[in-house]
Amino acid sequence: MYDLVIVGTGPAGMTAAVYAARKKLHTLLLGQEYGGQAARSLAIENYMGYQYITGPELMRKFEEQVQQYPVEIRRAEVTRVTRQDHGFVTQTAEGESFRSRAVIVATGKRPRRLNIPGEKEFLGRGVTYCAVCDAPLFAGLPVAVVGGGNAALEAAWDLTRHAGRVFVISLAEWRADPLLVDRVKNAPHLERRVGYETVRIEGDKTVTGLVIRPLAEPQKEERLDVRGVFVEIGSTPNSHIVSDLAELNAVGEIIVDCDGRTQVPGLFAAGDVTSVPDKQVIVAAGEGAKAALSAYRYLAGSPG
Amino acid sequence: MYDLVIVGTGPAGMTAAVYAARKKLHTLLLGQEYGGQAARSLAIENYMGYQYITGPELMRKFEEQVQQYPVEIRRAEVTRVTRQDHGFVTQTAEGESFRSRAVIVATGKRPRRLNIPGEKEFLGRGVTYCAVCDAPLFAGLPVAVVGGGNAALEAAWDLTRHAGRVFVISLAEWRADPLLVDRVKNAPHLERRVGYETVRIEGDKTVTGLVIRPLAEPQKEERLDVRGVFVEIGSTPNSHIVSDLAELNAVGEIIVDCDGRTQVPGLFAAGDVTSVPDKQVIVAAGEGAKAALSAYRYLAGSPG
Repeated sequence: MYDLVIVGTGPAGMTAAVYAARKKLHTLLLGQEYGGQAARSLAIENYMGYQYITGPELMRKFEEQVQQYPVEIRRAEVTRVTRQDHGFVTQTAEGESFRSRAVIVATGKRPRRLNIPGEKEFLGRGVTYCAVCDAPLFAGLPVAVVGGGNAALEAAWDLTRHAGRVFVISLAEWRADPLLVDRVKNAPHLERRVGYETVRIEGDKTVTGLVIRPLAEPQKEERLDVRGVFVEIGSTPNSHIVSDLAELNAVGEIIVDCDGRTQVPGLFAAGDVTSVPDKQVIVAAGEGAKAALSAYRYLAGSPG
Repeated sequence: MYDLVIVGTGPAGMTAAVYAARKKLHTLLLGQEYGGQAARSLAIENYMGYQYITGPELMRKFEEQVQQYPVEIRRAEVTRVTRQDHGFVTQTAEGESFRSRAVIVATGKRPRRLNIPGEKEFLGRGVTYCAVCDAPLFAGLPVAVVGGGNAALEAAWDLTRHAGRVFVISLAEWRADPLLVDRVKNAPHLERRVGYETVRIEGDKTVTGLVIRPLAEPQKEERLDVRGVFVEIGSTPNSHIVSDLAELNAVGEIIVDCDGRTQVPGLFAAGDVTSVPDKQVIVAAGEGAKAALSAYRYLAGSPG
């Protein structure tokens, strides 16, 4: 029986773990990969304390910090959190289950799919959701980035330094930090296709092309000869593990109050999986700290 | 006319400045000293990304990060924020005033006073509110720390390495992080006086003693021969500059929603000055980012 189970090892979960440990809560941290989405970030310039750091580097620092404390850590995929007696049971895909008096869900988001032909077939063979991981593999080759937000433009910016020609395909005008837009829009070898949708990904053993069409003239399909397709069209919250326990908003995020409390006493959430609108590492870390301190206050007042 | 005036140069204000600048808001940052209360912290072990860093060091990193951006910065004491037309006017003690469409108040807190005889007279001559600044001045000398929270115990812990005997005087049982309590309570040369109040500070040119008495037996005054009195009994929010504009809670904190909005459109607040219960650097930074992003959304939708 733990005081607290924290699900998720991104910025929010790891910060919560440090705060819980400093409050001497008997804590179990469960997660699949350290760093979560942040570990896929090419460059972080807005985490205070570091003018510039890569996502993987910053997340390694978070991880080392957690490891300073007597927090039990297990690599596991959590499938479900349910209530039991005065506490909770957290079940994993590996068949284990863990009881605790409180739970913090910090499971973040996962990349959204295009859902077009060829996407699944060529996953890992030209189709990727992780620019930070895969950009260097496309040195000198033509690639396409699908999306028009911060993540898409960061990927495009990085790819202009690795790849050959870079197409950026978006349904609507780019919506990203103005600084980033300025930087990317004048990058050499970059071609914008605004107002286009993706139709299918073609290839043989690996990707050889992406077919797109303008929303205004859907009959005018265009084939881009690219070897890589970087999908950066946003993400979906990993809230399914508490979907019949906590209240979710219209986009599937766990609804929390300002202190990370859900409507279920003892169940807390923090970071990108929650209804807090700003998905930023520094925000997730702050929310993780608040959730852990809320859990501590809850446990101090709750029946053993 | 600025888009945004940020008042306060602690963790919340500096983070807000970075986020505002990245959104290309025309921003003015006003404050008296970089780092605020955080710069007085002896040791920060719970700011994610740094296993151990002193408050001044971390705040210098924040400051350097702000200076990467085209944010106008002015050292000034803000005396009042008022509404004017569709925006705000921020006035300073130096007689200047600045107009802006939005304001973020991130003015933090200031140390609470004991309000006993001798406290004012011996300020800077043995009486101090800043352990990080003054602990080294008391090498080998007996000192008293007044308070029983995190700040008091951090000060006591540091003083055991500098000073001679260290008395810790508190009205009630220590209320601090369990890890810190464990560390401090067994420190050598440290004497706990729990259930005591302070009566007066005595001295000649400088402090020579602190008179205390047990709450249970008020007639039994005791004089501690100390050369330093470190006052660490909490702090008061610096919300006076918006006291007739924003709604404050019972302890004088500016009431904000989860996104740093006050009840006044265009007026935001973040960090220790707000009703957010957890006063932590990582929380203040997260709240500063959220307030800046809220202000950006407000400005994007507000009349010029």
